Amino acid sequence: MTSQYRVNYHLRAHKRDHLVEFIKGMLLTPFVLHAQPQPQPQPQLLLLDERVQEANAQRYAEIFASIEELIDEHRALQADGIAAYSRLAKLVPSIGTFFTPLPLRQAFGRVNLRERISARKHVPPSFNDIRRILNIAQVMAIAPQLKMVTFDGDMTLYADGQNFEHDNALTDLLISLLRRRIAVAIVTAAGYGDDAARYELRLSGLLKGFARAALRPDEVARFFVLGGECNFLFGCSPAYRLEYLDDSQYPASLRSWTDAQVQQLLDVAEADLAGCVARMSLDARILRKPRAVGLVPNAPLTREQLDECALSSQIALLKFQGSPKSQPCDVPIPFCAFNGGNDCWVDIGNKLIGVRILQQLLAAEPANTLHVGDQFLSTGNDISTRTACCTCWIINPQETHSLLSELEYVLAKNE
Amino acid sequence: MTSQYRVNYHLRAHKRDHLVEFIKGMLLTPFVLHAQPQPQPQPQLLLLDERVQEANAQRYAEIFASIEELIDEHRALQADGIAAYSRLAKLVPSIGTFFTPLPLRQAFGRVNLRERISARKHVPPSFNDIRRILNIAQVMAIAPQLKMVTFDGDMTLYADGQNFEHDNALTDLLISLLRRRIAVAIVTAAGYGDDAARYELRLSGLLKGFARAALRPDEVARFFVLGGECNFLFGCSPAYRLEYLDDSQYPASLRSWTDAQVQQLLDVAEADLAGCVARMSLDARILRKPRAVGLVPNAPLTREQLDECALSSQIALLKFQGSPKSQPCDVPIPFCAFNGGNDCWVDIGNKLIGVRILQQLLAAEPANTLHVGDQFLSTGNDISTRTACCTCWIINPQETHSLLSELEYVLAKNE
Amino acid sequence: MTSQYRVNYHLRAHKRDHLVEFIKGMLLTPFVLHAQPQPQPQPQLLLLDERVQEANAQRYAEIFASIEELIDEHRALQADGIAAYSRLAKLVPSIGTFFTPLPLRQAFGRVNLRERISARKHVPPSFNDIRRILNIAQVMAIAPQLKMVTFDGDMTLYADGQNFEHDNALTDLLISLLRRRIAVAIVTAAGYGDDAARYELRLSGLLKGFARAALRPDEVARFFVLGGECNFLFGCSPAYRLEYLDDSQYPASLRSWTDAQVQQLLDVAEADLAGCVARMSLDARILRKPRAVGLVPNAPLTREQLDECALSSQIALLKFQGSPKSQPCDVPIPFCAFNGGNDCWVDIGNKLIGVRILQQLLAAEPANTLHVGDQFLSTGNDISTRTACCTCWIINPQETHSLLSELEYVLAKNE
Amino acid sequence: MTSQYRVNYHLRAHKRDHLVEFIKGMLLTPFVLHAQPQPQPQPQLLLLDERVQEANAQRYAEIFASIEELIDEHRALQADGIAAYSRLAKLVPSIGTFFTPLPLRQAFGRVNLRERISARKHVPPSFNDIRRILNIAQVMAIAPQLKMVTFDGDMTLYADGQNFEHDNALTDLLISLLRRRIAVAIVTAAGYGDDAARYELRLSGLLKGFARAALRPDEVARFFVLGGECNFLFGCSPAYRLEYLDDSQYPASLRSWTDAQVQQLLDVAEADLAGCVARMSLDARILRKPRAVGLVPNAPLTREQLDECALSSQIALLKFQGSPKSQPCDVPIPFCAFNGGNDCWVDIGNKLIGVRILQQLLAAEPANTLHVGDQFLSTGNDISTRTACCTCWIINPQETHSLLSELEYVLAKNE
Repeated sequence: MTSQYRVNYHLRAHKRDHLVEFIKGMLLTPFVLHAQPQPQPQPQLLLLDERVQEANAQRYAEIFASIEELIDEHRALQADGIAAYSRLAKLVPSIGTFFTPLPLRQAFGRVNLRERISARKHVPPSFNDIRRILNIAQVMAIAPQLKMVTFDGDMTLYADGQNFEHDNALTDLLISLLRRRIAVAIVTAAGYGDDAARYELRLSGLLKGFARAALRPDEVARFFVLGGECNFLFGCSPAYRLEYLDDSQYPASLRSWTDAQVQQLLDVAEADLAGCVARMSLDARILRKPRAVGLVPNAPLTREQLDECALSSQIALLKFQGSPKSQPCDVPIPFCAFNGGNDCWVDIGNKLIGVRILQQLLAAEPANTLHVGDQFLSTGNDISTRTACCTCWIINPQETHSLLSELEYVLAKNE
Repeated sequence: MTSQYRVNYHLRAHKRDHLVEFIKGMLLTPFVLHAQPQPQPQPQLLLLDERVQEANAQRYAEIFASIEELIDEHRALQADGIAAYSRLAKLVPSIGTFFTPLPLRQAFGRVNLRERISARKHVPPSFNDIRRILNIAQVMAIAPQLKMVTFDGDMTLYADGQNFEHDNALTDLLISLLRRRIAVAIVTAAGYGDDAARYELRLSGLLKGFARAALRPDEVARFFVLGGECNFLFGCSPAYRLEYLDDSQYPASLRSWTDAQVQQLLDVAEADLAGCVARMSLDARILRKPRAVGLVPNAPLTREQLDECALSSQIALLKFQGSPKSQPCDVPIPFCAFNGGNDCWVDIGNKLIGVRILQQLLAAEPANTLHVGDQFLSTGNDISTRTACCTCWIINPQETHSLLSELEYVLAKNE
Repeated sequence: MTSQYRVNYHLRAHKRDHLVEFIKGMLLTPFVLHAQPQPQPQPQLLLLDERVQEANAQRYAEIFASIEELIDEHRALQADGIAAYSRLAKLVPSIGTFFTPLPLRQAFGRVNLRERISARKHVPPSFNDIRRILNIAQVMAIAPQLKMVTFDGDMTLYADGQNFEHDNALTDLLISLLRRRIAVAIVTAAGYGDDAARYELRLSGLLKGFARAALRPDEVARFFVLGGECNFLFGCSPAYRLEYLDDSQYPASLRSWTDAQVQQLLDVAEADLAGCVARMSLDARILRKPRAVGLVPNAPLTREQLDECALSSQIALLKFQGSPKSQPCDVPIPFCAFNGGNDCWVDIGNKLIGVRILQQLLAAEPANTLHVGDQFLSTGNDISTRTACCTCWIINPQETHSLLSELEYVLAKNE
Repeated sequence: MTSQYRVNYHLRAHKRDHLVEFIKGMLLTPFVLHAQPQPQPQPQLLLLDERVQEANAQRYAEIFASIEELIDEHRALQADGIAAYSRLAKLVPSIGTFFTPLPLRQAFGRVNLRERISARKHVPPSFNDIRRILNIAQVMAIAPQLKMVTFDGDMTLYADGQNFEHDNALTDLLISLLRRRIAVAIVTAAGYGDDAARYELRLSGLLKGFARAALRPDEVARFFVLGGECNFLFGCSPAYRLEYLDDSQYPASLRSWTDAQVQQLLDVAEADLAGCVARMSLDARILRKPRAVGLVPNAPLTREQLDECALSSQIALLKFQGSPKSQPCDVPIPFCAFNGGNDCWVDIGNKLIGVRILQQLLAAEPANTLHVGDQFLSTGNDISTRTACCTCWIINPQETHSLLSELEYVLAKNE
């Protein structure tokens, strides 16, 4: 009845990351076999204990080294166009593209120094342990060639629904990136059209930080805000003000959909979300915007209810676009149906398009671009960027801080 | 390689509740087979959709009815002393004792009315859905015979480390219980010895509520606070002050350990926790109290690190007590080694003893007693009460509120 | 660590059938919840027991009915070209094409009448139970429109490596098919080139049966033998002799590969098999034939060893054909690398091509064609037919017999 | 929904061996990470390939060494009476007693030399691979101190239902054991009362072998046959004839049940088996013997049906014996309800008692005794011996042969 298990797996796939779980599984064997507990620490045993620990760290490191090799083989076959035959693809069928190698062994060593994961005898390496090691490895790999870092907004740079405050510890780290000629962009779902003032309000702490640091015009020229996933682009003036850039000012061909197409798609999404409200008797209203439609609750909804709405509209749109009858144009319009934490939105366009537009503008390749965000489950709006660039998955602004500190450390060391 | 899975299961058992997961599994079949998605809600289909939904609710209800029957059979064999041969015990080997039947079908119906779980087509019934249904069923079953409700403190009545404030919405609900002649006790890990003032400080909002409501002496006489899991008992005076009760004032034979035994056990625990600090290079100090020893971090530790400490000391103490050589007394002293969220403690005694002392004092049987808490994983300190009474597992004070509201509703209806 | 499980699953996928296991999983819920054991059968309880049983059969039947609906939805989306979005495809991603609906509920009823699967209280519905129900359902569905039945040889019509003997109980059933104007073809891996005598030897029992039954010329004209998977076609003369048909005598465009291409592919396969022999120090020799290469052991090999050889050569050939560098022709030549039970073969062409050739010859559509075989795991050579026609998976000639008896029964009833 | 998985696991536990599966799981990590396939073996790569292989063998060997350590720790805690706290017990809760250490690393090395398990890149170490390695390790460990080998009959020494023929290749190996002063006993379910002739008939090939080899009286005096699991004991005369030994001739206190108790238990078993026949409409009859009751089919039953009967009667008897009301005597009579392959039997007594009787008679300890059989699943009748002695699990007489050859090799080497 393995299949029951698989069924469950598929049904909950929106709550999983397969690569992380694969690695977790691989680490279980050394954990089980080697992390032998001893009844009580005794002075004369401490030395032995230390050697046992070191041996265990060594074994974990070997596992990470082996996974590096799997990724290398996958990248080699990727280059040949037969990535589907890689050993990693067989083990983790949903695996995507790796734009850089990942020095996992080295990253594990660095994290383990601080967190002593290998010293634990009762709690095996966890999802979060491995996610953080992957992040560090990605930072190490991309640092020498980094041209642009894009950030999600809420939960990545500031708390959900909050503004970027003056005392935000991330300010200096972002300024440091700009000073190193690395572009910084905020790619957010928040869609206020071409209204620069509203974006300025939310980012006032950061912009004031730029001023305080007296960033030069050529430095702030590398700062961008891209709202509505990929729809509204703003640059930063020497006076530290956001300025809307219309389509004529940058290559926006990736976003070449007509309004008729957009409305047709939003009609489908709106109908589906309205169906969700009716079906589950949700106390929520539907909000239609020019390039988005949202379900906004009057009283808090459960995670299950919001996930249901996101998945329902995702599938409705995919079926609509997939059906030979209803296909409205040659290329299906990219969209993003996601659980926003407290609400659910269907946006026209997605962060994949957003990152690509910025890459075109700045001549950055996937291997030069890093996206940092907190929504990498299939009901999240950061996951689409994986097709376009390297990514780091953080879970709160504190983790963004420690990630950027690590990046700073690596960049400084490489100088 | 099913066993790999089992291994993982055992290693993470401290993060699971087996009955909830069993029920989750059983609900998957109707979810998978019947919750058919439809491409787009269309007016003419709404009626059909409603019938489909109702049929699905019916199927979920049948599953809950079947689980009720399993519990009934288990209770029947329990009465005969062969509960181990029940069908439920075969399916969920870790299953414990049920002191009442559980009207799960009815409870599901009530929850589903509000949350429309059966209307979801993409997100199956979740752990939290089922936990809440079990809670409601327990409340329904125990209400007619309820004599005492015991509560955990932090995260159950107020936020972690906070006090019971004046505007706490629970005040009226607790007062209502006391007015119905139902005893209310707070059974908490917080151990301040016989220092009533410190407990009064933390509960000042509640005590002032008693005063404001002008509770009669015989009503407040049914309110208790039991600190240090089971060690320090306080009653409530007609003037709404807490008063320490020493061992001579109530039956405390369950707590008949000598100080020598206590210190021997705490020595073992302290050595193990010190071992954890050394092994994982934790930035934390060991705090020794008369009947407890704790690991208190200087900087936040991860959940993994705190679980490791709790599990490590649990196993060290069990081995110490289990070994024929080191057994210090005839009956092993009950203890509680738990992850407190931000710290890790080994307490002498546990809430099982705490609840039993109160039951003796108030002549309440397991089937008349309800414990409400948030720590029912194996690294938590509420789980031990399951041997002594009925329990409800909540995850925050808001859930306690809605649980007590439901209890109020059932009690009022039964009047 | 669900992924560990998935990894295992992928590694052993060659030993699984996902649809059967999905159904097995779905049946577990009623099995667990309803098949309540009773301590001892007592006379007064027998009546109750019977009602319990009937209720359980009813529940199993409902599950099968629900799976019928999933298949119907999948077929509807299949017709629209978006089968990938069906609910069944989400649950069983490897699901293929259904050329007919499957009356599973009815088939279950029929099998349960005989085997009382729903009366079991300790052993849930098994893989073999479900495989047989699927077979019966397929027979019921295809009977009214059946034009051709193709059979594997070894283990399907006769024991492994044996001949079709005179007393083979299948003879009459095959004759009956021919008399009903239903074509019968044996599609076998056995490759003896155009040597009719060797095929006649192996099938002498059947051919003599035709003679004994005095089948008319137009009846035996519907009997075929296709050797080497799809390479060597024989018809049957009025004198009950096999006659080789060369490419000019029937549409063979599906088999339009050049000898140079064949040899290049066989070179790759031979090198890989030789590598297996070296790597595992197998006591075996490599046998090269015009359109096949085999690994033939001198002493029995284990199933694990033969599976390793089959999988190794499969992957080597797929990589060779997939690589943009080495692609020798526009369309990759179909091949079949399989564990033959006692040996391992790589054949040029496969039974998919074999069945399609016969369908062209006889103007039979997928929905009019049934293939019966025993090798439906991914290391078997019958599985490729699933793309071209309806299939039944048997495990020995006795099962073929009972399957054809059922077919006979349905055909007779429909007359 | 891990629990669904666990449910399935429990329901099919009668088809699993948890230690073997645990080891299988542990080997998966090196298999997955290191057994990298290469597209085609090329001459210049062969050397590399060999090194890769050797490294993989090394990794497998380390896993086996680690499991040895787990067993050693378990044995140490076993000696202290706290085996339940061993790491192995936590990982494999159903784990039993180890009467010797197991040199698994060495055994793996020996098996891998022949079967090159570590050279496989697509098929991971299987259940059968590991079962055989465990057997070899057990043989290596017990050889120096071996005093008695007991054998199951059918499928262990000869094919199911067959006799021990004159040309049975095992004859010489059994004779060799007797010549080394190692007792040999056949412990079989076959129950013919005190009728020596019927046992002689079944074993005639072996007895004639003794004669042909001219075994000395003191050598054949160490040969025994124990029929009816543990009920009918026969010795071997210098004239190579079996002679019934009645209770007065050997210590049989382990078998001290009264006939009344026996009949009461058989009544329960018979009623349950009759219930199975009625419930599943089986074409079978119930056979009552003095110390057994069987269900004997008129037409072949499926494995599922026989397992259902065995499990049903097992549970019925356990409940009967467990219930405080019906307990007929102080110590429950041991019994054995098993699927005999073609029939299902409930025997009074079991092989555990059988082996213990022989151990008393021959002054052999558990660590000096080896039982070889093919029925070690929970519906088999060899599994009970695990409590009394070391065991080897074979699946056919060929495996018994290779096992005894290995034993001969080790014994000879140790001389």
